[in-house]
Amino acid sequence: MKLYVVGLGPGNFNQITPRAIAAMEQSDVIAGYTVYIDLIKEHFPNKQLLSTPMKQEVDRCKMAIEETLKGSTVAMVCSGDAGVYGMAGLIYELAQNYPPIEIEVVAGITAACSGAAVLGAPLIHDFAVISLSDLLTPYELIEKRLDLAAQGDFVLCLYNPSSKKRSDYLQKACDIVLKSRGGDTICGIVQNIGRDGECAQVLPLSQLRNTQVDMFTTVYIGNSNTQNIGGKMVTPRGYRHTSNG
Amino acid sequence: MKLYVVGLGPGNFNQITPRAIAAMEQSDVIAGYTVYIDLIKEHFPNKQLLSTPMKQEVDRCKMAIEETLKGSTVAMVCSGDAGVYGMAGLIYELAQNYPPIEIEVVAGITAACSGAAVLGAPLIHDFAVISLSDLLTPYELIEKRLDLAAQGDFVLCLYNPSSKKRSDYLQKACDIVLKSRGGDTICGIVQNIGRDGECAQVLPLSQLRNTQVDMFTTVYIGNSNTQNIGGKMVTPRGYRHTSNG
Repeated sequence: MKLYVVGLGPGNFNQITPRAIAAMEQSDVIAGYTVYIDLIKEHFPNKQLLSTPMKQEVDRCKMAIEETLKGSTVAMVCSGDAGVYGMAGLIYELAQNYPPIEIEVVAGITAACSGAAVLGAPLIHDFAVISLSDLLTPYELIEKRLDLAAQGDFVLCLYNPSSKKRSDYLQKACDIVLKSRGGDTICGIVQNIGRDGECAQVLPLSQLRNTQVDMFTTVYIGNSNTQNIGGKMVTPRGYRHTSNG
Repeated sequence: MKLYVVGLGPGNFNQITPRAIAAMEQSDVIAGYTVYIDLIKEHFPNKQLLSTPMKQEVDRCKMAIEETLKGSTVAMVCSGDAGVYGMAGLIYELAQNYPPIEIEVVAGITAACSGAAVLGAPLIHDFAVISLSDLLTPYELIEKRLDLAAQGDFVLCLYNPSSKKRSDYLQKACDIVLKSRGGDTICGIVQNIGRDGECAQVLPLSQLRNTQVDMFTTVYIGNSNTQNIGGKMVTPRGYRHTSNG
């Protein structure tokens, strides 16, 4: 009677860790958002599968907890890392309202890291990860964080940079960063990391501001030292060998 | 003639991705810091191994590039993710000075994520990753980043929180954060993630300030919403259901 919360990584089977595979193999039930269940179900033909559509995270987590309480071992799967904007937190929060169960979080490769590998090496120095989604976070706090992180010369990695209702959020975010950094700051975008249609682009901040991205895109804004080296986005590991800082 | 830069994850073999294993299998030479080579060498008995001691990162990267130019396929291995304070950036920087080679970065699970899974779910909302090492970064910039990230209510994840020469750096960092956050802010520390002697502790910021940690420790400072749920460090996924924000 155990509930694993498992990060599947970027989406291709060869970036799922053996530990994550073992957690799914040891489970009677694999639960998750329909799209992620579809990614792995062919590899686990004998498991009971429980999937729910997007935006029903609370129901999905309750379902997984209740299934565990029935006596099953359950693996709740998430894309990327279960602990970065993933289900691990909600599982711990909701599990408080039920009789005790054993919970184990199995880390996966989050989009910040898998996308960085595609772009080159943007996250070699201090960085801030910010979601532009204001579904559960006041927009003013998102703006404040963008402004402070830009002032601190952090590399920025932006999750959920766009949606139908928020098509201008990336532009607004770039305008906030442009208060502290030049338009020539090296940036990068990666779409469909680890999946069909994966593509990446390295571009200056002034151009990123005018680029339309979709919800399957992860966005990187370099620090004052980040370089474009042969089309790759590369942040040096320190400041001592330059005039910056 | 290809150079892979491979993240090995936290240190146990079952958290290395199949893609990372394949990169090492396809290589003639595996290069890296002695400690990481020791972690994997028994699994690759037929490879040429090239290891260099700590702090010789530039030499190690040059060696790997020169070996690739001789016609070998080389895997340069790093702990965690090769792209987070790892060798991927230095490889791209140094490779500019040589004839062109093909470079591929293979992401791994960085300590921020593997440590978070041990603690519970501290990184569910926006977070900043900061190294307290001032070997290559001016100390004033580290202080500035701590201050700005604390003001922005980011969860903080601190790498390299201590060394023999910097035994009071974590205390200083906590004092900076305490300017913006209460002493009861939920924090966590994880030692030896994924290795023998792995241990974790959840504690308030006021107590973290007086805790001595070693260089194998990753430190987490929660945001204003982070909770201690049954001994686990859990950050809620949003602000809307509380009075904060």
